[in-house]
Amino acid sequence: MCLDKKDLAYLGPEGTYTEEAARIWNPNGSLLPADSIPDVARLVSDMRASEGVVPIENSIEGGVTYTLDLLIHESDLSICGEVIVPIRQCLVGKDAVELGSIDTVISHPQSLAQCRRFLDNTLPHANLVASLSNAKAVQEIMDSNKNVAAISSQRAAEIYGASILMNGIEDRPNNETRFVILSNADSKVTGRDKTSLCFEFGDDGPGILSDALKEFASREINLVKIESRPNKKNLGRYVFLVDIDGHRENSLVKSALDALQERVLMMKVFGSYSVFEPE
Amino acid sequence: MCLDKKDLAYLGPEGTYTEEAARIWNPNGSLLPADSIPDVARLVSDMRASEGVVPIENSIEGGVTYTLDLLIHESDLSICGEVIVPIRQCLVGKDAVELGSIDTVISHPQSLAQCRRFLDNTLPHANLVASLSNAKAVQEIMDSNKNVAAISSQRAAEIYGASILMNGIEDRPNNETRFVILSNADSKVTGRDKTSLCFEFGDDGPGILSDALKEFASREINLVKIESRPNKKNLGRYVFLVDIDGHRENSLVKSALDALQERVLMMKVFGSYSVFEPE
Repeated sequence: MCLDKKDLAYLGPEGTYTEEAARIWNPNGSLLPADSIPDVARLVSDMRASEGVVPIENSIEGGVTYTLDLLIHESDLSICGEVIVPIRQCLVGKDAVELGSIDTVISHPQSLAQCRRFLDNTLPHANLVASLSNAKAVQEIMDSNKNVAAISSQRAAEIYGASILMNGIEDRPNNETRFVILSNADSKVTGRDKTSLCFEFGDDGPGILSDALKEFASREINLVKIESRPNKKNLGRYVFLVDIDGHRENSLVKSALDALQERVLMMKVFGSYSVFEPE
Repeated sequence: MCLDKKDLAYLGPEGTYTEEAARIWNPNGSLLPADSIPDVARLVSDMRASEGVVPIENSIEGGVTYTLDLLIHESDLSICGEVIVPIRQCLVGKDAVELGSIDTVISHPQSLAQCRRFLDNTLPHANLVASLSNAKAVQEIMDSNKNVAAISSQRAAEIYGASILMNGIEDRPNNETRFVILSNADSKVTGRDKTSLCFEFGDDGPGILSDALKEFASREINLVKIESRPNKKNLGRYVFLVDIDGHRENSLVKSALDALQERVLMMKVFGSYSVFEPE
């Protein structure tokens, strides 16, 4: 729990999985949809929202690069919590038509990718069209003829009055997305916390990364996640993002972070927060 | 050089940066455009093309997840070479119209993201629309009214007869994409080689990754790149992709790979190949 939970910004429009994550984080709060991930961050920085919810990682597609790059390069917000939402994709039509009559499928390119095998097998002749979000795809089919379908969540279909033609069309099970809660404030020790940070080396050379990670290992601190992003200056130079077990106020974590700081050109701690526990 | 270089498959349509990479790899070969990254791989596996060119990494956007996941999960092709291409984005119209009259901009979501600041400053009121490739975006504007623009390469504009309204509109300099050449055959030692591989741990625990990377560091083998991808079974479980200096037939590299193999559940060497040298 970070701040008083009113005006929670999220990546909209209504019906996205991010809205679902926002409702899990704060079931009774008032929600504020934003057009893009940077817009969510801006609403929080400018104090027009107390917190903001953005996707950070999907179990099939990997890191959400917009969010990672925002945390690394553009924002000084803290991560004060996380929520994990299972993803179930639906094929959605304006009316309840036969699958055989569908000639076009609209969705975000990631959703088209997640349902590729289903599309190849069931709708091999359909024309695939990109949209900027799944909820937008549903809005678009409501203005098209009935042979155009969308891929979206069940909730987006319900909100915009579309018909669910088929549920659970994603190719792989265990499709989950992790969302983080952005805030101006850090989060207190709860006893079951993790810490997210990034760092970049000034030098290059054999062993530099394994020596740095040793600062966690030698203190028995578990590395929950490691990922790299381009530093955006030179191809082949990276910023590393790691999640570790424990709160930054914990003395072992604190000493590991101090030791790491000595080894790197840049280090930024995004925050320490309670590990998500499903209800 | 891998095989006899005829029928080089690439991610099309004509006018993509991948086509440019294919022309650099084999200036006089016959090129075979494919609709998707898996289609490029399929053409090579089925011997309908001798090699295939796909993007693997961009200096701003990071890893091309389709290609990484194909190499990890779906293909037994080898990487037998690499090409690096500088990316210059153009704003392109059907005719040479004033910027002020543009009300819609179509492009692949990655290109829209790469030109975000330009779009915010110069065309703040334009409606942004996603397409499946930049070359496709140019094809689409040729069938629209003249107030619709695309973001694409100069070559795509030339091929489809569009007008370049502005050149170099990407927000960050040093925008480059690295492409790899997929083949059924491995590549010979040239003296300036690198090796690409992936691995996944069976266990978890402090130090497991830093100990594994130590197999390279202790042999003075430089880690050129490290990246992680979800293992697609459980959120928070990863496959690590690394590029190291040296050819797998080099005895130090060979002993490091043998030692790493003992520490992991799964290891896959994608290939050893000559480091790209611009002309």
